[in-house]
Amino acid sequence: MNILLTIAFDGRGYHGFQVQQNAPTVCAALQDGMERLLGERPPVKGCSRTDAGVSAAAFRLSFHSDTAIPLTKLPLALNHHLPTDIRVRGAQAVPDDFHARYSALSKEYEYRFLNTPTDDPLLGGLYHLVPRPLDAAAMDAAGQALIGRHDFSAFCSSGSTIEDKTRTVQALRVIRESERVTLTIRADGFLYNMVRIIAGTLLRVGTGQEDETYPARALQSLLRDVAGDTLPPEGLVLSRVFYPPELNLG
Amino acid sequence: MNILLTIAFDGRGYHGFQVQQNAPTVCAALQDGMERLLGERPPVKGCSRTDAGVSAAAFRLSFHSDTAIPLTKLPLALNHHLPTDIRVRGAQAVPDDFHARYSALSKEYEYRFLNTPTDDPLLGGLYHLVPRPLDAAAMDAAGQALIGRHDFSAFCSSGSTIEDKTRTVQALRVIRESERVTLTIRADGFLYNMVRIIAGTLLRVGTGQEDETYPARALQSLLRDVAGDTLPPEGLVLSRVFYPPELNLG
Repeated sequence: MNILLTIAFDGRGYHGFQVQQNAPTVCAALQDGMERLLGERPPVKGCSRTDAGVSAAAFRLSFHSDTAIPLTKLPLALNHHLPTDIRVRGAQAVPDDFHARYSALSKEYEYRFLNTPTDDPLLGGLYHLVPRPLDAAAMDAAGQALIGRHDFSAFCSSGSTIEDKTRTVQALRVIRESERVTLTIRADGFLYNMVRIIAGTLLRVGTGQEDETYPARALQSLLRDVAGDTLPPEGLVLSRVFYPPELNLG
Repeated sequence: MNILLTIAFDGRGYHGFQVQQNAPTVCAALQDGMERLLGERPPVKGCSRTDAGVSAAAFRLSFHSDTAIPLTKLPLALNHHLPTDIRVRGAQAVPDDFHARYSALSKEYEYRFLNTPTDDPLLGGLYHLVPRPLDAAAMDAAGQALIGRHDFSAFCSSGSTIEDKTRTVQALRVIRESERVTLTIRADGFLYNMVRIIAGTLLRVGTGQEDETYPARALQSLLRDVAGDTLPPEGLVLSRVFYPPELNLG
């Protein structure tokens, strides 16, 4: 049986999802839990690699298993064997050829700003603190220039070796809810550090350091140096993965 | 000069506010920071002791100092010398005879439930998870019986040696906001574990284990055993301290 899990994790204690030697990863913690519960350590296909320190509200991963545990009981059973910063939220049967990454149509990330003079220790830390006033409406307006199919070279970490930097951004919104300002961006794929660089670019608009044409100018330049800083991973959360509607995966 | 600080802290790493030997406390961490910033370690008067593991959104404390640092700059300056789970949010001058604890008229606590099948690692952990359906309206209705001046012996930890267990509960509300159910309670004083026992009592109403007359019956019994469990400290947050309005302390 091919099983799709939906998991949430606080990524601050992990070097991303993908298994690495000599560094704790979400995938390795998950496989440790599977080994304890199921007595097997199946290969896992994640929907994304995710960088060190990045979190997820609804990460998707698939694996094959012949476990006798009913899928409705699998999340609770597996959670007993996982660290508390990783929680399984659902398990579904998927077609045999389903792959959490290659079957995905698009993914959605949030970059979370906290716009207060000082940190709030009660919020759990998954945000980027901005003490200066932030104009969320200006960030939202400026970001609309990134929607569509473009060469996003300016928004790709210079360390990346990928050749085709064309991606399609399907939606981009910046919304303020009291002290929280959240950038939500959906695309068919993301380049290395793309959301964090877009967030750093829109931040310069929000603080008034650049005007609303800045993201469009950075995009057209194709130059990483023209775009804004790569913001820290703590503010970044993978919020949703979209699959073909006929699969009915929610 | 007598200075009143408002601080927020995630209390999970501390054995309460009050200084203890051989255990980390919020007050000791704060005095360490003061010593580094001000070159002195003034005695600190906290608004409350708070139990191990309990957090605060707006804890108040007062201390005397002749620092030349302007009060508007003191929070940021002090935060540089504090662990990130403690943040100073404001500093005000208060009359010389002001005492953060004895000058307080009343205090307000929140007990936070998360009503979902599994934990949410993105919420930062400051809640008590209740996987069973919770009827917040029933909890709110049942809790109204506790408002007023009563002997709260049934809601005081049996380890307490205090004699007069009469307190006045001024307000009590249970409100649901999507998956979060929050008990807010304001009183002129709180007995040892009082909020956590009230929360445990209302929880039994919310899950349908007891009917809405249960808190009233527990109150009248004066017996600790009749009331509900003492819930864990992680869900408890000191949310506000009220001072005489003429002091204008917000």
